[in-house]
Parts: sequence; structure tokens; C-alpha cells
Amino acid sequence: MDSKTVGILGGGQLGRMMVEAAHRLNIKTIVLDADNSPAKQINALDEHVSGKFTDPEKIAELASRSDVMTIEIEHVNAQVLEELENSGSNKASVQPKPKTIALIKDKYLQKQHYISHGLATSHAKDVASTPEALKQIGYEYGYPYMLKSRTDAYDGRGNFVVESEGHIEEALKFLNDRPLYAEKWARFERELAVMVVRSLDGSVHSYPTVETVHKDNICHIVYAPARVADSVRRQAKILAENAVKTFEGAGIFGVEMFQMPSGDLLLNEIAPRPHNSGHYTQDACVTSQFEAHIRAVCGLPLPDGFSNFSTPGTNSIMLNILGGAEPNSELETCRRALETPGAIVHLYGKSTREKRKMGHINIVSGSMVECEKKLAFIMGTGPKPQEENASSQKIPAGLSPTPLVGMIMGSDSDLPVMQVGANILKKFGVPFEVKIVSAHRTPHRMTNYATEAASRGIKAIIAGAGGAAHLPGMVAAMTSVPVIGVPVKGSTLDGVDSLHSIVQMPRGIPVATVAINNSTNAALLAIRILGAFMPEYQAKLDEYHHSMEAEVLAKTERLEKVGYEEYKN
Amino acid sequence: MDSKTVGILGGGQLGRMMVEAAHRLNIKTIVLDADNSPAKQINALDEHVSGKFTDPEKIAELASRSDVMTIEIEHVNAQVLEELENSGSNKASVQPKPKTIALIKDKYLQKQHYISHGLATSHAKDVASTPEALKQIGYEYGYPYMLKSRTDAYDGRGNFVVESEGHIEEALKFLNDRPLYAEKWARFERELAVMVVRSLDGSVHSYPTVETVHKDNICHIVYAPARVADSVRRQAKILAENAVKTFEGAGIFGVEMFQMPSGDLLLNEIAPRPHNSGHYTQDACVTSQFEAHIRAVCGLPLPDGFSNFSTPGTNSIMLNILGGAEPNSELETCRRALETPGAIVHLYGKSTREKRKMGHINIVSGSMVECEKKLAFIMGTGPKPQEENASSQKIPAGLSPTPLVGMIMGSDSDLPVMQVGANILKKFGVPFEVKIVSAHRTPHRMTNYATEAASRGIKAIIAGAGGAAHLPGMVAAMTSVPVIGVPVKGSTLDGVDSLHSIVQMPRGIPVATVAINNSTNAALLAIRILGAFMPEYQAKLDEYHHSMEAEVLAKTERLEKVGYEEYKN
Repeated sequence: MDSKTVGILGGGQLGRMMVEAAHRLNIKTIVLDADNSPAKQINALDEHVSGKFTDPEKIAELASRSDVMTIEIEHVNAQVLEELENSGSNKASVQPKPKTIALIKDKYLQKQHYISHGLATSHAKDVASTPEALKQIGYEYGYPYMLKSRTDAYDGRGNFVVESEGHIEEALKFLNDRPLYAEKWARFERELAVMVVRSLDGSVHSYPTVETVHKDNICHIVYAPARVADSVRRQAKILAENAVKTFEGAGIFGVEMFQMPSGDLLLNEIAPRPHNSGHYTQDACVTSQFEAHIRAVCGLPLPDGFSNFSTPGTNSIMLNILGGAEPNSELETCRRALETPGAIVHLYGKSTREKRKMGHINIVSGSMVECEKKLAFIMGTGPKPQEENASSQKIPAGLSPTPLVGMIMGSDSDLPVMQVGANILKKFGVPFEVKIVSAHRTPHRMTNYATEAASRGIKAIIAGAGGAAHLPGMVAAMTSVPVIGVPVKGSTLDGVDSLHSIVQMPRGIPVATVAINNSTNAALLAIRILGAFMPEYQAKLDEYHHSMEAEVLAKTERLEKVGYEEYKN
Repeated sequence: MDSKTVGILGGGQLGRMMVEAAHRLNIKTIVLDADNSPAKQINALDEHVSGKFTDPEKIAELASRSDVMTIEIEHVNAQVLEELENSGSNKASVQPKPKTIALIKDKYLQKQHYISHGLATSHAKDVASTPEALKQIGYEYGYPYMLKSRTDAYDGRGNFVVESEGHIEEALKFLNDRPLYAEKWARFERELAVMVVRSLDGSVHSYPTVETVHKDNICHIVYAPARVADSVRRQAKILAENAVKTFEGAGIFGVEMFQMPSGDLLLNEIAPRPHNSGHYTQDACVTSQFEAHIRAVCGLPLPDGFSNFSTPGTNSIMLNILGGAEPNSELETCRRALETPGAIVHLYGKSTREKRKMGHINIVSGSMVECEKKLAFIMGTGPKPQEENASSQKIPAGLSPTPLVGMIMGSDSDLPVMQVGANILKKFGVPFEVKIVSAHRTPHRMTNYATEAASRGIKAIIAGAGGAAHLPGMVAAMTSVPVIGVPVKGSTLDGVDSLHSIVQMPRGIPVATVAINNSTNAALLAIRILGAFMPEYQAKLDEYHHSMEAEVLAKTERLEKVGYEEYKN
């Protein structure tokens, strides 16, 4: 796709996945790292450079064979890269710019950079490696505070939580001999992250906002998208894009943020390369973070929208696989992932070692609830999930553990009317549930049902009620799931009381009302709603309409044949 | 993931993509083919075998280094494989079974096999390579008929369409010296294909049914899923699964079928390996056909549902990239793909040659209409599509070329009522359209609008009407898209006429009815329907509900502060 050769400093898993993406574009990559490093395993060239990505000679050798150089880790020799670029003798450009790499690899300079650009971030101070200096920080920031190594720190190596004055000695021992800085403890609610691509012309594009969960300072689980309001996701994207705009050079950046209890977002750290929080893009987006990075450094197109999820309904969870206490014991987790539909294992070709990043698992589905169930099974904390996807292939029979439609009614006296609709749902193979929920007699149960429906994966609620029929409207007031109301005819007023009580909702809270006692149409409407996004239901509706048509045509044929006088006999 | 070493006969693009999938599972693969073949380029081992996959010695060498051997092409030396397996001296098992490979590589034996198993397929006869024999076939089958080489035929090499007696000589010249058979011409409506995985225990799993379009006998475009009724898709899956059950051994099979004008399906050919019609699985499914094949031959899990689309809403199109008339001119197509969000380029590392399979492009989106627009741009026959996905990222402003909601009304006199709802759609950033469609005055326009809505990607229709309000119900009768009815109040009867005319639909055809004149609620209901599958709309609804709540709370605060007597001033 491009005649440029890309030289990569570092051949770990990030380099490996860059190489994988470059292969698909027929872009040549050469790697500087130890022999048989993960990236080299999948790249049969004899031009790789063997050595350390901090070694000036080796970097020069890589440069002489490359058109553009990039990094998979920021702890390279940025100074040598800068000298090479400035020397003019070297044909390889470096992306992102060595200046950017140098700035980011010193975490305290990085922090100062955000502050000087007016980007929201937590308080920080550089500090001498002495007990006195650390005590002074304790007075200022209180405990706990975060003590970090300014350089060579990643995956938690280089971070220490100083919980009290009593831990200062231990902290100094742990971060032995490294330049330090202290950060005020951010009592965040949640950690968010956004991958941002910067193209050669300086424009930025961001991937969806995700939620990261860390364990022992190492990325553990990523939820994509983040389970927060859309406004928060947008705010995070804006902060991330603005932050990446302040750096120079092309490539992808991983932006980590804290969401504070006030709702404010604070910048935590940025990595100038593909990032663990972006691994979900391999399977949840059409263009992965690795391909985006390769495109960016080669100056290939990055059109608007390339970083969207594959489909509007895509949800994903990533789980990191760390080496287990016993060699290869982490493969048990991978084995469970292979037993889980919609999960994919990415291993890095590394030899097993405790807590080493060995691989990751991406789970992809049309619903986050499904993803979470699968995650629980893979982590060994939940049962094996039923086959998902009421989707394309097999239609789950009758009731299912993951209902798509909830049918509720105020009283069991409504059941004769409502069960006609339930039979339709069953006939169409829709996973559904039937419950008695009374607005007037079980108001708290109703509140729970309504508020939890969306997160349980319910896509439509059918509510039947008679008389002063409040149930459909009250449920609609407490959920954003579409609510379909069935007016049930009572002993007086012919059902007009129920109809008007259900249909005449005030502006702001809609109830989709069907004809009196017509639960059939309520069920069919629910199936139309599913069918708008699940083609197999739309196809089944088409078949149903054809069969209705055929039925009427058969009747008229008989009517015309036997005559209207004989017809009713 | 598995300590087995997989030996692959053939190192073309199919072998390359198998290797790519195996890498992710840390499964070691070694390849028998020429040096630097596509599969070897991405596999840095020195144990590869250099030579031909028909050479008995080389096959034995591969076997000695493998635990299981498999193929990326059926034109291998199946006899040697069978002898090796039977000799007992060889540790490598062969998957699928050499018997299966031998049966399939002779297309006429393959055909006979289907007939003997009672699987629907077209008529065929073996035929001598003489003008007389071919004339005889012409008498029996009529013209055109298909003349095929029994062996070494793929990608159209080995097929000749005999259009008349006058073409017989040309046919014999083209298929010079090869054993032949003739097939009766199948005047099919459409070609369908299904990838089926057979596991070691003989159970089968199928991927979605797709539609293939060939050009010059070479696979050109694949639509996934096939643009046919769900019942046809299911029928195709059943035929494909039944066909693959008749073979022995594990691995993936590509099953090609014809859909006849009668609706019947006929088996065409089966490939005992990954197949061009399954390339879409790389980006539209979580587990690709290549990973499925590797899992099958290694005996790794293939859980129910692993072969589903990533999400219920996933649609995909694959376009093959053949070498252009000018060297590398095919890269123009790739370049346009890179400019298209939701498209991914897979190149195979081959040197350019006219009509050579150089790579393929997968397009993935939540709607087939979107995929088709993108395809047109990539093929150079359509304009650059607007950024898609009203999805997660950017919200298209106001009207959009791809509306999700259609708002129609019987008359412009309904507009003052309906435009309040249109403003809500605009405020929520929903792509929508507004049209006048009258049931009584433009019945044909109404029919067109209703029948085309689903295929245009419309997810909900809002129809406003007054008096004898037939529009919502009539539209609902001709589409399976959910229809929301707004009763518009006329000059008499207070709108009760419209309400009853819209809500009291007969069983079978639902209209989601809202309160009289309440187009706001119709719009909000449409947004709830979108929100059921597009999380960003659900999030916006949540925000909207919070703001309504805040508004009322502010009012009561004022009421309590100023008192009820002062409030209205």
C-alpha cells in the first residue's frame, strides 16, 4: 500500500500487533529489539536489527534501513532520535517527534506540559529522594499520595502509593535511585481512556471513550464504550483530543483520565504509542489502533469516522492475560475464552512468567450485559453463558435467560388478554419474560422493574392495564426503553377509560398505545422494534404478513366459489 | 494455546491468513511451499519446507515436523497424504481426511458423491475429450452448458461455457488434455455460500449464509448476510451443513449453492478449506474462518454461536482485489478503501500481475445500505459516502442523506402539529426526513414509501393524520418497520375520530399510537426505539429525563418559596 519501510523501536506485543497491521497493508516493517522478540516472530526478514532500542549505534542502523521510524515504547533513546533527525544525513523521519517522546518519557515534564497548556490534571511536585522531602509532601497533600518515578515507569513499575508517613522508607527502597515526583491522590470515581490519532497534518481523530479498571497498577479490564452518560464520553473525547493536539508528530496516543466525583475529568497520563486500553479496537472497530498508527506515521488516509465502532450496537470488553503463579496456568483463562462465543484470544508469543503480559481477550457483542456475562465466565466467576445473539443464526426457543421483551400487567385478571400476545412472541422465537407488576399495589417493584430494564438488556416493554390504567405511563416515566401500552377492557366503559388513560400521556413521556385488548399488536410492535435492528425478526415479520395475505386470499377464493349465501355454512 | 505444530500444504493467501490466526493463539505453523510465499513472509521460522505441495518427499518432510497437517488448496498430493496416514510411521494426522481431499479435488467424483447422498445438485456427466462426445452433451443438455476440468480447476481456470456447437472446438483447446465432465446449465437467480466447520467429533457449525457475485468465474463481491429472506438463509445453512456432514475429517469447508427461480437450492461445489466467500468473517465475526479452521484441526473448542456475526446488527460486503491491467493499478481501489470509514484492506504480499488475487477489502457497518454506498465509492462508481454511524461518535446535524426516522403526514395542514416533533428529532441529532404522503390522495406514493422504508435503512416511521386517519395504519400494513401514529385534532370531534381511527387497528398490524396532537411523544418514542440498540440515544434520553425532572423541581421550589397565590404572577 505504501513503499515506505517503517522501522520500529521495540519488538514487544505492541510492535508485534503493529507488524500484523502493516502486513495487511503490504507495508514493510523492520524491528530493533532482541532476536525472536514477539514482533520478529511474525516477520520473516533478515534485515531486522538485533540489539537494544536505547543503543545509539543500533538506532542509527535501523534509521539507515527505514523511511520512517516509530516506537512501541517511550523508553527509547529520544536524544539519539532527535540528533539523527536533525543531522540531515539520515533519511528516516521519526513519528511521533523525538521531542514528544522525550517530553512524555519524563512523567513530571509531561505533567508540567499539561499544566502549562491549561489542561485539567491533578497536582504534582518533583521531590528529592529523601525521607524529609517525602514527609513535607505528606503535610501538603495528606495521605495517601502517589509517588512516581519520573522515568522508565510503566505498568505500575515505578509507582508507589504512600499510605502514611510510616511507608516512606519502603517507598524510597522500592523506587530506589530513581528521579521522583509526587502526585496528590485523585479520589476518582472511575478511570476513562481515549485513543487519539494525530495525523501528519496535525488533525486529530479519537476512538470511543472507554472505562479502564486497574489491578495492582496494571490494566486489567477495559469496557468499551465506558459505562457512563454520553455527555461524559463526549467531554472525555474533547479533553483527550485537546491534550494530543499539544504534541508534535504523527501516531496514536493513549490518553488516561480520572472522572472525579464532581463529574470533572482530570488528565492522568498519555502514552505516545498504541496502548493497552485500545486493544478492544482490534475486534470492535474495523480499523484497529495498530493500523491507525501505521497509517498515521506513513501519511495514509484517516477519514472521518474510521475510528467508530464497527456497528452502532457494538459493545466490547477487553481482559488482560497476565502470567499465572504456575507457568502457563493463565492458559486456563484462555481456554474458557475459546469456549465462549464472541470472545477472541490474542497471545503474544512470549514465554510464561508470573504477572507478565502474555496476551489479552476481546469480547464483542451487541449488548454490554452479554459482554459482562461472558467476562464472568472467562474469569471463572460466573456460569457458562447461554448462546447469545437472538441474532442471525439460531433462534432461542421460548423463554430465555436474557429476555429482549418484558411483558408486565397490573393483575392476573389481565392475563387472558395478555397471553395472546405472549403466544405471538413465543411463535416468533423472541426471548421474553412475563411478570405481574402493579402500579398501585406494588409501586416499589414497578420502580425497580422500570429502572433496571435497560441495563438488563430489555429492548421493549409491553404493559397491559385496565380502568385507571397507570402502569404503562408510570413505567415509561422511569425508563428510556420503549413502552407499549395495551388498554384492557374492564366491566364498564368498554375499555375507553383504559385507552384514554394510556394514550393521553403528557408531552415528554410517550407510551406506544395499541387497540383495546389487542395484545397481539403489542407483541407484533415489539417484534417490529427488534426487527429494526435485528434483520431476522424483520424477515419473520415479512413471512407473517405474507401468510396473513394468503389467508385472506384463500377466504375470498372460497367466498367467490361457494357464493356469499353458502359461505358461513 | 496448543502445543501441536500445524503443517500447512500451500503458502498462498489462505495459508497466510491461517498463519495469522494461529499466531494469535500461539500455535506453531510450518509451511510447505516456495520460499517467500505469502504465508512464509509472516512466519519467521527456519523449519519451513521449501518445495511443491505435490512432491512426496517434501510432504514426508513436512509430516515429520508436524503433529497435524492441513491444506490451503485441494490440489495437493492426496494419495501421498493417505499413504502417510496409513503407514503408521508418521506421527502427523491429516485434517480434513486425505479421502475427503481426493474426493473433492476430482470435481466429477465430488458431484457423484452429492447425488449418491441425495443432496440436491445440478445434472452432470463425465465426457470424453472429443467433438462427438461434446455434441452429444449438447443434444442432451441444450446450450449453453458448462464444461469443466475434473481436476486442478479453481477460480474459473478449468471452466468453459459452451454456448453453441460452434464453440466446441474452442472449448477443447481451452481445456486441452484434461479429464472433463459436463454440467447442465443452472439458470440460477443468485449464488449463495455458507462456510461450515466440521470438528474432530464430526459436529458441524455454520457461518451466516452469504450471497456471492462472480465475474469471469472469479469471486468478485460477497454480501453477508445474503440479501434474501431469512427462510432462504436457513434453508441454505441446512443444505450446507448436511453436505459437509458427508465428508470425513476436521476443518472448514466452503459450500457454494445456486438459488433457482423456483426458490430451490442446488449444491454447486465445496472446497475443503477456507474459502474466498468466507473472508468477510475476518471483520464481521469475532472468530474468523481461519481461526475456526485452526481450532477445528487442533481439536480446540468451537462453542455454539462462535460463528455468529459480531453483533446482531452487523452487515458486511467483501470485494476482491485482482491485479489490474497496469502493474499496481489495483492499488487505486485500495486507496479509496483507505479513504472510506468502516473499510479494511487485506493485501497478501504478492507481486502484482493482471487478474491475480492480490487482496480483498471488507466493509462492515450496521446497515447493508451503508455497505453498498461504500462499495460503490471504493469501486469508483459512486460518490464519497458521508460519515456513517449516527453512532457513538459524532452526531450528524439535522437532515442527513441516511435518515433513521421518516416523518410523514397526510397534508401540510398537519405540519404545525408535526413540526414540534421534528424539532425534538433535530435536538437529539437524529437523522430524519419529513414528507407529505397522503393515503387518500397519493395512494401509490404511500405504497412506495412504505415498501421501500426498511431497505432504505429507516428504523421508525412517524405518521400524522386527522379525521378518517388512515395513513399510519395503511403504511403499517405495507412495512415491517415500527409505525408511530399521531392523531391530529380536526375541526370537529376533538381528535377522538383520529385517535380511534389510528389506535383501533385489527389484530396483525400494530400502530404505536400517541396522544392527540402529541408529536413530541411520537418523536421521543422513535428515539426510544433507536436507543434500544444505539446506546448514545438512550444516554441522551436519560439526560432529557433528568432535565425534565430538574425543571419541575425548580418550579416547585419557586412555588414553595413565593406561595401558590403569587406563583402565577
